Amino acid sequence: MALRRVLALGASRGRRSCCSKPSLPPDFVEALRAVAGAPNVSTATAVREQHGHDESMHPCAPPDVVVWPQAVGQVQELAALCHRCRVPMVPFGTGTGLEGGVNAVQGGVCFDLSRMDAITELSLEDFSVTVEPGVTRKALNKHLRGTGLWFPVDPGADASLCGMAATGASGTNAVRYGTMRPNVLNLRVVLPDGRLLHTAGPGRQPRKRAAGYDLTSLFVGSEGTLGFLTQATLRLHPLPEATAVTVASFPSVAAAVACTVQVLQAAVPVARIEFLDEVMADACGRFSGTGLPVAATLLLELHGSRHSLAEQQQQMEEIMRQNGGSGLAWAEGLEEREQLWSMRHNAWYAALALRPGCQGYSTDVCVPISRLPDVVVETKQDLQASGLTGPMVGHVGDGNFHCILVFNSQDPEEAQRVHAFTQRLGRRALAAGGTCTGEHGVGLGKRALLQEELGQEGLDTLRSIKAALDPHNLMNPGKVL
Amino acid sequence: MALRRVLALGASRGRRSCCSKPSLPPDFVEALRAVAGAPNVSTATAVREQHGHDESMHPCAPPDVVVWPQAVGQVQELAALCHRCRVPMVPFGTGTGLEGGVNAVQGGVCFDLSRMDAITELSLEDFSVTVEPGVTRKALNKHLRGTGLWFPVDPGADASLCGMAATGASGTNAVRYGTMRPNVLNLRVVLPDGRLLHTAGPGRQPRKRAAGYDLTSLFVGSEGTLGFLTQATLRLHPLPEATAVTVASFPSVAAAVACTVQVLQAAVPVARIEFLDEVMADACGRFSGTGLPVAATLLLELHGSRHSLAEQQQQMEEIMRQNGGSGLAWAEGLEEREQLWSMRHNAWYAALALRPGCQGYSTDVCVPISRLPDVVVETKQDLQASGLTGPMVGHVGDGNFHCILVFNSQDPEEAQRVHAFTQRLGRRALAAGGTCTGEHGVGLGKRALLQEELGQEGLDTLRSIKAALDPHNLMNPGKVL
Repeated sequence: MALRRVLALGASRGRRSCCSKPSLPPDFVEALRAVAGAPNVSTATAVREQHGHDESMHPCAPPDVVVWPQAVGQVQELAALCHRCRVPMVPFGTGTGLEGGVNAVQGGVCFDLSRMDAITELSLEDFSVTVEPGVTRKALNKHLRGTGLWFPVDPGADASLCGMAATGASGTNAVRYGTMRPNVLNLRVVLPDGRLLHTAGPGRQPRKRAAGYDLTSLFVGSEGTLGFLTQATLRLHPLPEATAVTVASFPSVAAAVACTVQVLQAAVPVARIEFLDEVMADACGRFSGTGLPVAATLLLELHGSRHSLAEQQQQMEEIMRQNGGSGLAWAEGLEEREQLWSMRHNAWYAALALRPGCQGYSTDVCVPISRLPDVVVETKQDLQASGLTGPMVGHVGDGNFHCILVFNSQDPEEAQRVHAFTQRLGRRALAAGGTCTGEHGVGLGKRALLQEELGQEGLDTLRSIKAALDPHNLMNPGKVL
Repeated sequence: MALRRVLALGASRGRRSCCSKPSLPPDFVEALRAVAGAPNVSTATAVREQHGHDESMHPCAPPDVVVWPQAVGQVQELAALCHRCRVPMVPFGTGTGLEGGVNAVQGGVCFDLSRMDAITELSLEDFSVTVEPGVTRKALNKHLRGTGLWFPVDPGADASLCGMAATGASGTNAVRYGTMRPNVLNLRVVLPDGRLLHTAGPGRQPRKRAAGYDLTSLFVGSEGTLGFLTQATLRLHPLPEATAVTVASFPSVAAAVACTVQVLQAAVPVARIEFLDEVMADACGRFSGTGLPVAATLLLELHGSRHSLAEQQQQMEEIMRQNGGSGLAWAEGLEEREQLWSMRHNAWYAALALRPGCQGYSTDVCVPISRLPDVVVETKQDLQASGLTGPMVGHVGDGNFHCILVFNSQDPEEAQRVHAFTQRLGRRALAAGGTCTGEHGVGLGKRALLQEELGQEGLDTLRSIKAALDPHNLMNPGKVL
């Protein structure tokens, strides 16, 4: 009876405007409860506010209601209901995004998918596994322990894997293992009207296919604007037999970047190659108490067999020396390696500690590697001229770097300087043949830059696709486009 | 004057049906000549027939007219003209496709892009280069000689790189270097109405980006149905310092495949791992005069530094031995290696030589590796039961294999058996969680299987995208969908 009422709801409703933030139709929340069960629906202010923001500085925009679906069938029913009533829908994973992707700027229903957390279809022979959106990357790697396989994409945060797919995330290992895109084999998507799509067909996971347009790659990086990612089939990788990490200091940014280019050209299969500018190296060293030299720094990780690792280390040392780099000894034990990486993973907090009580915002440009030294040097000059604190870290093997801007968000003048700086940085990256976002996504903050990046035809093409798949603009409205 | 006439042409024309093969509007060919120059337009029967088929068995379907644009601006003008007159457009590269992708089943204009053959923006630091559609993979690698870089995707034929992007091609090196998709950084596309789109934005080539939907991946594998690929920016790779090739015979198909899985699990970075069944090994051995043992065979290539190569060879030998494989010595010299690979590259002709005077057709399924032994064994039984000749080759590291069916296309009964066999094979792959096409594309022959593979929602989604980007169904109509 309740279900029938839900299905009938909205049948007679006209189209609601999506440009303002309208209130929900009467009985709507009741209808959600009828589908998901009363305990899985909340309109409490605290809950809504908790779901109205991610880790970025974009102001909280709470949804009208939060629902925790328990199964894909519920996601379909709930989406169909929202679709009929023209209520906006916002997918929510762990809320660890950095561009306001979950902020419900037009209100509506937040779908918190964290309670769908099954890990299924692990195939050791096929190097593949299927996860629901509640599964985080750490949970998956814990599940894989003892299998000899792992999932290497590591954006730092313990994000939901489906959220990482939605954002097109990458992180420190991308230089060797790729971003999310090549590591997703199939996605189960609930479309805005509740229909169920498998981007590579139901139950399929071949390592490659040439069968029609690549829907998997279309939904990876779609930032919740085309549908709900309710399951991802992922490509796993063999765990390396041996791992070694080192830290090296360089006389200049240019030298550190030149070293990186030579490493790539020599085809050393480096697993991570992370850059810290001298401000960040100083901050990280002080924050972790290890006392890094105040210099342009590379943090490097190598994976291989024991035998090949020795050769890689020798090659690396040679290239570092040629570029004036001086390094620590190689850390090969787990604890020692984790200590070095925790220094890098705490970069955000080390940066925040430079100005206690202030807020952080991370930029995310990515440029061709040949342009990296110039862009980094100009950006450092800009930071100085702008009077801003913004230590740099970067996935330098991909040409992707972040300035962690630490500023007083209560000071409108400083906030304005931060905004102007990020716009200039975005345009500098575009002028160098790069992108305004390498891995954080467009979200709320980079829509204007996206237009400059793609040009009118590019943006029109994105809009055509969005209109074709979500004609009522109900999926995460106000994001990307 | 002529140009103005061209621009005016079609302004008053209504929509033409795309389901039959209508004749061209009056003055249309003259209008094409006005844009491209008279010598670059042909309606000669021999020319049209030459452009009406690829290397597959699909019957020749000649276009009404062939045009050779000399520059992207001409492609835009010609497309705008066709768009206004509602005339179908078919992109043509080298005509080396295997699924009838260039056959002009609804007539119209064939755009032969082979005369646009510039190689520009080679950047050794960024490992990237930009090519026009007339550039083939061999021409590019010749151009790269002496730079220390190469483009590894190798489908066998000396195909146009833009054509390879359009098909989503891969081939023998994909297990190590990926298919076309991860190796295309940007595409310059002429849309069906003549507008110019850069899929990653004009002039951009960062190694990764998270800026909006991935248009590059959407156009890779679109088989000419969404627009013309008039330029591709490609990712290059460092040439390996050393290369070694070997051939190993196994007691069974299952043993050869088990060996492959173990190689992947051991994280040996194998560059090529090609499977030949005993029929194909026999045919290749006889065709090349090398006398391969009549057994399930793997042809393996390793890339690395001299030092790491020795380790890889040792690992490979160990794994081969464990699976009952017995191999030749490693070939490391260029000539010796090329001799072994020419045996593999001549597989098509070696197969045809089994029945002189007959035609060939290559199937293209791809399945999860765990299912490969079963699918291969069942397929061999099916071949036998069907009384068909169909030796097998496969990019076994990806789970992708081909039966080269050699049959008398003049015998309707045998052609029917071939058709029935390919349908059964496609369905067998789908039932095993695979795809009907790993690298040849859907083209004309696999549209029904694509529907089974993707399901109704998948196909509807492809159709929505096609309708959004090519609302009049003018780009390569009758293909894929």
